[in-house]
Amino acid sequence: MENLYEVLKKVELGKITAEKALKVIQGEFFEDLGFARVDFHREKRKEFAEVIFAQNKTPEETALIAQKLYERHGRFLATRVSFDHYEAIKRLIPNTFYNDRAKTAAYYLEGKPRPGNPLIITAGTSDLPVALEAEETLKFAGFKPQTLFDAGVAGIHRLFASIDLLRKADVIIAVAGMEGALPSVVAGLASCPVIAVPTSVGYGANFQGLSALLTMLNSCAPGIGVVNIDNGFGAAALAISILGLKEK
Amino acid sequence: MENLYEVLKKVELGKITAEKALKVIQGEFFEDLGFARVDFHREKRKEFAEVIFAQNKTPEETALIAQKLYERHGRFLATRVSFDHYEAIKRLIPNTFYNDRAKTAAYYLEGKPRPGNPLIITAGTSDLPVALEAEETLKFAGFKPQTLFDAGVAGIHRLFASIDLLRKADVIIAVAGMEGALPSVVAGLASCPVIAVPTSVGYGANFQGLSALLTMLNSCAPGIGVVNIDNGFGAAALAISILGLKEK
Amino acid sequence: MENLYEVLKKVELGKITAEKALKVIQGEFFEDLGFARVDFHREKRKEFAEVIFAQNKTPEETALIAQKLYERHGRFLATRVSFDHYEAIKRLIPNTFYNDRAKTAAYYLEGKPRPGNPLIITAGTSDLPVALEAEETLKFAGFKPQTLFDAGVAGIHRLFASIDLLRKADVIIAVAGMEGALPSVVAGLASCPVIAVPTSVGYGANFQGLSALLTMLNSCAPGIGVVNIDNGFGAAALAISILGLKEK
Amino acid sequence: MENLYEVLKKVELGKITAEKALKVIQGEFFEDLGFARVDFHREKRKEFAEVIFAQNKTPEETALIAQKLYERHGRFLATRVSFDHYEAIKRLIPNTFYNDRAKTAAYYLEGKPRPGNPLIITAGTSDLPVALEAEETLKFAGFKPQTLFDAGVAGIHRLFASIDLLRKADVIIAVAGMEGALPSVVAGLASCPVIAVPTSVGYGANFQGLSALLTMLNSCAPGIGVVNIDNGFGAAALAISILGLKEK
Amino acid sequence: MENLYEVLKKVELGKITAEKALKVIQGEFFEDLGFARVDFHREKRKEFAEVIFAQNKTPEETALIAQKLYERHGRFLATRVSFDHYEAIKRLIPNTFYNDRAKTAAYYLEGKPRPGNPLIITAGTSDLPVALEAEETLKFAGFKPQTLFDAGVAGIHRLFASIDLLRKADVIIAVAGMEGALPSVVAGLASCPVIAVPTSVGYGANFQGLSALLTMLNSCAPGIGVVNIDNGFGAAALAISILGLKEK
Amino acid sequence: MENLYEVLKKVELGKITAEKALKVIQGEFFEDLGFARVDFHREKRKEFAEVIFAQNKTPEETALIAQKLYERHGRFLATRVSFDHYEAIKRLIPNTFYNDRAKTAAYYLEGKPRPGNPLIITAGTSDLPVALEAEETLKFAGFKPQTLFDAGVAGIHRLFASIDLLRKADVIIAVAGMEGALPSVVAGLASCPVIAVPTSVGYGANFQGLSALLTMLNSCAPGIGVVNIDNGFGAAALAISILGLKEK
Amino acid sequence: MENLYEVLKKVELGKITAEKALKVIQGEFFEDLGFARVDFHREKRKEFAEVIFAQNKTPEETALIAQKLYERHGRFLATRVSFDHYEAIKRLIPNTFYNDRAKTAAYYLEGKPRPGNPLIITAGTSDLPVALEAEETLKFAGFKPQTLFDAGVAGIHRLFASIDLLRKADVIIAVAGMEGALPSVVAGLASCPVIAVPTSVGYGANFQGLSALLTMLNSCAPGIGVVNIDNGFGAAALAISILGLKEK
Amino acid sequence: MENLYEVLKKVELGKITAEKALKVIQGEFFEDLGFARVDFHREKRKEFAEVIFAQNKTPEETALIAQKLYERHGRFLATRVSFDHYEAIKRLIPNTFYNDRAKTAAYYLEGKPRPGNPLIITAGTSDLPVALEAEETLKFAGFKPQTLFDAGVAGIHRLFASIDLLRKADVIIAVAGMEGALPSVVAGLASCPVIAVPTSVGYGANFQGLSALLTMLNSCAPGIGVVNIDNGFGAAALAISILGLKEK
Repeated sequence: MENLYEVLKKVELGKITAEKALKVIQGEFFEDLGFARVDFHREKRKEFAEVIFAQNKTPEETALIAQKLYERHGRFLATRVSFDHYEAIKRLIPNTFYNDRAKTAAYYLEGKPRPGNPLIITAGTSDLPVALEAEETLKFAGFKPQTLFDAGVAGIHRLFASIDLLRKADVIIAVAGMEGALPSVVAGLASCPVIAVPTSVGYGANFQGLSALLTMLNSCAPGIGVVNIDNGFGAAALAISILGLKEK
Repeated sequence: MENLYEVLKKVELGKITAEKALKVIQGEFFEDLGFARVDFHREKRKEFAEVIFAQNKTPEETALIAQKLYERHGRFLATRVSFDHYEAIKRLIPNTFYNDRAKTAAYYLEGKPRPGNPLIITAGTSDLPVALEAEETLKFAGFKPQTLFDAGVAGIHRLFASIDLLRKADVIIAVAGMEGALPSVVAGLASCPVIAVPTSVGYGANFQGLSALLTMLNSCAPGIGVVNIDNGFGAAALAISILGLKEK
Repeated sequence: MENLYEVLKKVELGKITAEKALKVIQGEFFEDLGFARVDFHREKRKEFAEVIFAQNKTPEETALIAQKLYERHGRFLATRVSFDHYEAIKRLIPNTFYNDRAKTAAYYLEGKPRPGNPLIITAGTSDLPVALEAEETLKFAGFKPQTLFDAGVAGIHRLFASIDLLRKADVIIAVAGMEGALPSVVAGLASCPVIAVPTSVGYGANFQGLSALLTMLNSCAPGIGVVNIDNGFGAAALAISILGLKEK
Repeated sequence: MENLYEVLKKVELGKITAEKALKVIQGEFFEDLGFARVDFHREKRKEFAEVIFAQNKTPEETALIAQKLYERHGRFLATRVSFDHYEAIKRLIPNTFYNDRAKTAAYYLEGKPRPGNPLIITAGTSDLPVALEAEETLKFAGFKPQTLFDAGVAGIHRLFASIDLLRKADVIIAVAGMEGALPSVVAGLASCPVIAVPTSVGYGANFQGLSALLTMLNSCAPGIGVVNIDNGFGAAALAISILGLKEK
Repeated sequence: MENLYEVLKKVELGKITAEKALKVIQGEFFEDLGFARVDFHREKRKEFAEVIFAQNKTPEETALIAQKLYERHGRFLATRVSFDHYEAIKRLIPNTFYNDRAKTAAYYLEGKPRPGNPLIITAGTSDLPVALEAEETLKFAGFKPQTLFDAGVAGIHRLFASIDLLRKADVIIAVAGMEGALPSVVAGLASCPVIAVPTSVGYGANFQGLSALLTMLNSCAPGIGVVNIDNGFGAAALAISILGLKEK
Repeated sequence: MENLYEVLKKVELGKITAEKALKVIQGEFFEDLGFARVDFHREKRKEFAEVIFAQNKTPEETALIAQKLYERHGRFLATRVSFDHYEAIKRLIPNTFYNDRAKTAAYYLEGKPRPGNPLIITAGTSDLPVALEAEETLKFAGFKPQTLFDAGVAGIHRLFASIDLLRKADVIIAVAGMEGALPSVVAGLASCPVIAVPTSVGYGANFQGLSALLTMLNSCAPGIGVVNIDNGFGAAALAISILGLKEK
Repeated sequence: MENLYEVLKKVELGKITAEKALKVIQGEFFEDLGFARVDFHREKRKEFAEVIFAQNKTPEETALIAQKLYERHGRFLATRVSFDHYEAIKRLIPNTFYNDRAKTAAYYLEGKPRPGNPLIITAGTSDLPVALEAEETLKFAGFKPQTLFDAGVAGIHRLFASIDLLRKADVIIAVAGMEGALPSVVAGLASCPVIAVPTSVGYGANFQGLSALLTMLNSCAPGIGVVNIDNGFGAAALAISILGLKEK
Repeated sequence: MENLYEVLKKVELGKITAEKALKVIQGEFFEDLGFARVDFHREKRKEFAEVIFAQNKTPEETALIAQKLYERHGRFLATRVSFDHYEAIKRLIPNTFYNDRAKTAAYYLEGKPRPGNPLIITAGTSDLPVALEAEETLKFAGFKPQTLFDAGVAGIHRLFASIDLLRKADVIIAVAGMEGALPSVVAGLASCPVIAVPTSVGYGANFQGLSALLTMLNSCAPGIGVVNIDNGFGAAALAISILGLKEK
């Protein structure tokens, strides 16, 4: 679909046949493993390669997809990775690095950091796993995120103490459970975009993160985009596409 | 029920008959209007007289109950009072005062303020009607509430500018719609009890106040009690029973 | 709060008194109208002046706040503006422009467009009011948004026909009701950040936009941030803070 | 109830007694096992025999019902079958085939495929168990379904690459979790009926499949019928009754 | 997208230019009215022309889209049509027929009925508007639906009395509010596909049709596909694509 | 269906033909008005004639059904009757009695009261319309209900004062909105069955009666059956079938 | 509270002292175990002794309460009893009978059955545990319930086959999960009161019984009272208080 | 933030430098452990030291924070403490006391009780863990709470027997699951503030405490503040700030 006109032009100019063109348009973008169609093209379209969501996949399926991506791109990232998943991957890609709090597995070479200054803040210690998933994803994409953990609104001076970090950030990922008020306060203090991540941490009526989610959607502070509950990866992916503007 | 033993003692001592005792226990506490049983006893039990909830009552019913309370106690307060309700009451109690933003109607004589320092804060201008219902109820009960309107967390310096008010309060009623984060921040700064009132003000996913309600219930700041959505009266009633401790 | 150290330094150097410093920190950032505390400082903090949310405010309150902002900044924007609100504002600020489908009222001088290429897409014709609120907000902030209306997934070729617009955008606001699948498809095709706005348009089980909201939060396409239901202003505010990165 | 008139006619003609007629009408359609009333008549009424829903039944109950159906019809199908269930069945019906991803157990002889071309599509690899339950049910009913797995909207070219399959199908079962947008896109491209199956696969705010369910119910693409969350069997049963039209 | 290979072949053979091909692929399928992109291509793709959903559109927008479809196809159908909408359409298409209970407006020439025997059943009299929307849509598509109104399960003999109608139907649309049990009973008696339409008719805890919706999704009777609450059009559209199998 | 065996016996004995029997079983139980199938048989089956639920029916439809029932049974009852409905009925049945708070219309001759002692209690004055709908239904069925209005748990002595009424009742209908605690307390004091009717009366988080509904379903006091929100008729219908045991 | 007047009379007549009277009114009705106040008085008030709800109690607490009741009344019944609970009880009351599908433990002597004919129907085999809890409770209270299992609406002839049972019942407990339509059909056929028990059995969108619960609350068939999800005990308790009318 | 003016004054007077002042304002209030920022300042601000919420923290993190607080304040309290948490804490603070029903761990020296009379009431035995969490927190804060367990509304005489306790309390914590009616009845009888704690104890439709929560929010009895489901700690924290008024 991408460069449809160019492909058509090549056909018109006789450089490629109609059959070849059809294949170009439809065929070379993914590999069909039967149980999965690995999307190689996403790297070009979305600036970083397809990331594997391991939850609900068997260890074997996960490992095979990781291998395919690794062979093609020389690197891969998987999220929601249990230890069983990790062991299956490691058998195929021995250098795989596993972060057992973030539940991510990855292999990639660190290069020079890409420009842009992402900041990850959490309201409490319990929000760490989600924040670390975001951190690992940003690092995989070539960024060097700053972090500020346990800075929730119940002791708001803990946040004010680090106000310079907020001011210098290009994008802030604010992770909070319970009442989820952190992004509102952060967006009231910083001018960069704020990505709000509700977490499922809390007592009874948080309803597995629904409370924090609604808080964030209803924030009266402008400049907030919300992602799904516990979705550290999604927050990082949005941050990455925002930071992409610095390189345009 | 109250002084059951005393009543029993009087029967034993022959001071009153069993029939009279039954009447004392059951009969003198309310007046049956057919459609309503006016609870005269509440004043003694709960420190201020029964307050009329006018919504869903006809103007005539409301006015008749107001009159009964007025005759018995020399004063009355009604909430959720439409203009039609007000006109029906006024016909029976001409000096009735109507606050058309708070939707309260009342008659009472102002005396010396009772001890205690209640403070009412709202997050936005749109939360005023709920805050004013609380204010009118506190005034009816003999208190002199302070107010601080439009001090929400999106511009948190507006709240800090009045931090002395927060420090001096004996009880704070914090009224907020949208994401409802105000009580969390207030309770993080003040040591007195905070009564959180969610309001139905907001955009789509506030679901008529559900969002603010959940936020307040899940607050990570200790010292918060929550009342029903838009329930300014309920917040004031709780504040009044808290302030009652100063007079014990 | 901002330059706390600088203010402290000035006190230390005797340039200002402690009293003055307190005022600087707390006092000059807003004007207290009694019913509202107008936040003048937001312009500096958040890159554009406070925007008035007229819903639930009386026409008079709205007009007074508009006037205060207009006097201070020479311009203003109000959203959720009924015709009654508009007439009250117009009495105080005669040149006010009213967009009766977007329900916005504003006065500002158009200047040279700021750099950045925002695109607004809607799934259907019925989503227009929300999209126009976003458009008016972006224009008020100095941007020149592109628009692509009625390009929903039921006839997906309508979207592919405009794929170049998607590719060139710096940020996309995707507005959709009913099943709300548009942002997923858009984010699958474009690499820039996508701001998803669910609308309350639809049949029964959309539950006033809940269906579209959940769809967008659960999108399997990376790079999406969600705002509240029908919140065109919020989407634009997030877009503006994202586009701010181009000027850093 | 079925051929009530015919039964009545037989009574009138003295061919059967009233007692016999009562038994015909009421008694021969099922066998009462005490804990279950096995519905033999369903095969005639609904084109394929009663299928056993094993979840919440003990292995022994499941096995006994399977045996009754097997004795009567020479075949049976059970869904939501745990390994314990399977072992109990196998003891009574040794040739039972168990698909441990679909969680189905069955015995039947494959014959010539019935006319009709059902297609099963999934959005992701994680939706496989639900899709396989549908596939096993269709095969039990005598059909030969095509499958297309992992073709979700985040990489929509994976779907377009197989557009011929969509065009040739008589009925499509589209299985998707997360945001569940797949059926909308499929129904926008194909003219045959689309059966949408939401799955409980996803992050936080999918609420065990509610998100995908609402998406599918609110689809703006015409020609979609929705079944319960994770209900692969129900989707297949609807497909079977649709394909029945080809044989009428 | 459709005949991509054929278009490519034409380019290869020099019959059309790349530019023309691009236009063919992208450009001739809809007309951009600014506020709407009328999808002419849907007729070919989905067997009947795009149907206008008038709710949330202005009368003028609705009338203009109707006119475009009428000019192109010689007929049109609009649903959720208020009297104001109707009058605007009538000004442009004087022969428009309006069904004020179904809230449909249409113009088309009746031809010979298409093969297939759809049946519409309602549980109560109050479900009529939804049933009539389905009926009008089926008639627009060329079918001749049978109807059976007020046959709900509280007096189940009313349904049994018409059991022959159920047996002869090719597809049944079962419309029910309140507890919505009708489709379960119907699907237990008939072998053809049953399309279940929940309606918002009922007392308190039906929650605007949620109760009937959940009932239908959870039906233990196989062969049911559910559409959105009150969505008579959607039910008919699904019925039409099912009946299409009879013409293949 | 009823006396199936008897009908069959009559056929066997040649007393009636098969055709007649079919008609007896299926045909004489209702009259088809096109938009409604009036269920004459319900009177026999359910001890009182079909009651008309007027909401969502047009005045004309309602009046016609009332007339049919009136002609057949010499009496009728309709609930949820607006004034417009009433006027339409009155044109056909001039002696119709309308209770504009209960929203019932009826015609019947009062006879000797049936045995049984139903009691209707409400928590507040605002619950009256629901209680009156129950009262009218009980009176229509021939009972003489006692009433006790405004006896909610906030002033529990009002309930204790009437404890004799509770003890003497054969069945109690307890109607309550807000927190709906009345039935729990009543069932803790009385030994007869308690029918709990939640009402939609209340502040914000009662969610149109959901709060009271859940309270009643979760009651820890045994002997409570719950009906739908605001369903005074349903409560009465259940009371009537319970009181039927006294006549067996 | 009970015979307040009588107690007062005795005081007046000098038969008992005020102190004794106070004790009578307050003190002899329960025994305080510290963690529990065993309600001996309930047997008199509610016709059968307090039943122990074991869930969330420790085995030791459960056993101690059982022993207290056993000592006082010579019998006891506990519900939601795990095997651990059972073993603790058995140590104190060796003759305890445990039904491990109903999860009840009890000791009592069977006597002559009390008059009244309760019937328990389930829609499916999976609803058995709930039905058995009801059955055990009825038997404990001295009744002899009939049962009819697996008679759901998907094969409605299974229900009709037993229509005589329905006609002869004094009260019917109808237990159903999934769509929960059984009580509607039963109440349409029988004239006695129907107690509807939703169960948590089912696929995804049954939401742990919510679907069946809503179905039953919204039933259009009159004469149904609903109890909590899976609450077999509550259904039996209501049945018992209904059957109590036969003995009055 | 606290004594901002005083700090500024000290800077003005040259007593401290700007750098020192900045540190005072920002720096000395907490210690950054990397994964947590321990809030030492809360003791001053909120009258008792920060309490550790152990759930979702690792045993090691919990123990380290406990140690920091212990070193600073000579005491600590942790809630939601599993046995693993406890063992980790005990290794660092050997004298730690663990209450395995309240799931609290603490170390502190008991002193003379602070003035004030808190009372904790539960509806049932199953509500004990929540009540004990509240009790432990009150004791940690220096109070001597009274308790009254298993006094729910189904046997309301159990509550009346202890009415003197209710009358003498300064604040009442009322803990209830199932229908949660206890606080309404308590607040109808006592004049002090009532803190309502819903618990997740109950059958199906209590939805993990939602039912009790809604009941309490909708209570028609004035003077109730609600905290989160199962939040014994939050209730105690509110009680403590209320009792603080006695010491002002």
